[in-house]
Amino acid sequence: MKLASFNGGRIGVVIEDDIVDVSELVNVTPGTWPPVGMLHVIDRFASLRGKLDDFAQTAPRIRLADVRLETPVAWPNKVIAFPANYHAHVEEMKRGTGLISPFKADGQGFFLKANSSLSGPADPIVLPQIPNRQIHHECELAIIIGKGGREISRDDALTHVFGYACLIDVVVRGKEERVMRKSYDTFCPVGPYIVTADEVPDYDAIDLKLSVNGEVRQHASTRDLIVDIPEMIRMASAVMTLYPGDIIATGTPAGVGPINGGDKVVIEIAKVGSMSIDVVQSEGGGHPVWDKPLN
Amino acid sequence: MKLASFNGGRIGVVIEDDIVDVSELVNVTPGTWPPVGMLHVIDRFASLRGKLDDFAQTAPRIRLADVRLETPVAWPNKVIAFPANYHAHVEEMKRGTGLISPFKADGQGFFLKANSSLSGPADPIVLPQIPNRQIHHECELAIIIGKGGREISRDDALTHVFGYACLIDVVVRGKEERVMRKSYDTFCPVGPYIVTADEVPDYDAIDLKLSVNGEVRQHASTRDLIVDIPEMIRMASAVMTLYPGDIIATGTPAGVGPINGGDKVVIEIAKVGSMSIDVVQSEGGGHPVWDKPLN
Repeated sequence: MKLASFNGGRIGVVIEDDIVDVSELVNVTPGTWPPVGMLHVIDRFASLRGKLDDFAQTAPRIRLADVRLETPVAWPNKVIAFPANYHAHVEEMKRGTGLISPFKADGQGFFLKANSSLSGPADPIVLPQIPNRQIHHECELAIIIGKGGREISRDDALTHVFGYACLIDVVVRGKEERVMRKSYDTFCPVGPYIVTADEVPDYDAIDLKLSVNGEVRQHASTRDLIVDIPEMIRMASAVMTLYPGDIIATGTPAGVGPINGGDKVVIEIAKVGSMSIDVVQSEGGGHPVWDKPLN
Repeated sequence: MKLASFNGGRIGVVIEDDIVDVSELVNVTPGTWPPVGMLHVIDRFASLRGKLDDFAQTAPRIRLADVRLETPVAWPNKVIAFPANYHAHVEEMKRGTGLISPFKADGQGFFLKANSSLSGPADPIVLPQIPNRQIHHECELAIIIGKGGREISRDDALTHVFGYACLIDVVVRGKEERVMRKSYDTFCPVGPYIVTADEVPDYDAIDLKLSVNGEVRQHASTRDLIVDIPEMIRMASAVMTLYPGDIIATGTPAGVGPINGGDKVVIEIAKVGSMSIDVVQSEGGGHPVWDKPLN
């Protein structure tokens, strides 16, 4: 099943090129703050799924092209991210800026991106005005957690995956705190919707690809992950209780590079979907914290 | 006004040694998931305050000693934290492990702690079982954001402060991602309640103190902050939209040190309150990510 947020906090089931509004069925009131409607749906999905399937067969459909899709989980407990999680990307970072930790993801652990950096498939990436800095795209598969828990084993890990989505991890290159460099508003486009895990059985061989202005920049498979999906869930839950709706950004493969105002970034993940995102240069977002030499 | 969460998501106003249950008045249903009740109260506080004041004068009181206080904001948009934000602490970190960034907080920026690390004044700090690692206490003032916003100026910053609370920033020392080392469950005790900003006018000279087993380990004043409170709000909001209920951990002064199972940690902040927290050693929380030499 494909679950989407749209038109101001409505919940929808996507069927081919259409969407069915299920907000009333799942008892989510659009427009409420904070926007936690999808968390309720994920938390109660086992009891909702049959009803959603039945309803979606007969209910009125809206053309996907006629709605505005939003980031599917707008206010999770947390957005977890694994750095340096593809060998070829670790090598390119060493060759490039040299700004890389001594550890790969299996020894370095994870960080967080701000919930407020989440944006949707119809939202542009808005670049801050920071002179002399590059801002890079990173193509990633997102895991959406279903059943929460702590100290989840490798063997149980996949039973905690609710679904998958495309995720672009946008980052200002530099030596400042990684979290700050990755947490600008719109620096975490997720979507176009959540595809439930049953539709993506080959989680360990998912093809992912990112292009800028039609040129393929990143192309890889989750089979090349250093820390694989079960181990990410084990590691994160060794430290933190995972909750329904938590998002895990699984790391980026080689090919990261700069984006600029006017660019169009397309991310495509097999069986998961695609997003085409505009990049816009703003005049805001500056602060003296960025005003120092890069090296 | 002192606003507390207690007894499973109830909202209370604290008056001296008593608490008044205002859950019904503020239309918060205890026990709902996710626990965002306090966010609603903070968001609507301007229109609620008069009603709360009137109600608290006449409503039945419960002795504070007879309730279980909980972390006041359990599910914010984010918990922002400023590292290396007191000169004397930066110096002790250089002398000690050497594990310090080349920048102080004015050039380094901020990171995040996981929402799931938040715990309350009645909850112990639960130490994971990680051989050969020290786990340190850090004594901090927490800012709770009221009115949200982006690109907030220094001049406007204080109008966005809802209130203050005590915060202990617990951390595993090491070279792994700072966020992971600081995000274990219970590694962010906050409380005992939120004191609204009008009761803490001298925000730039707040006395804070932390002791372990009766011995004072940290004692400082917010006048010694490198990045002061208005600048923290300016810097964070240059990057991210701040939302009502966002928490900012303002950084720790000198005197950080190890805590162990059986310890009692007391944090006291003038006009804000105090918490006495037990430290418990667990047998869980381990993972191979920690299994490497510290240096």
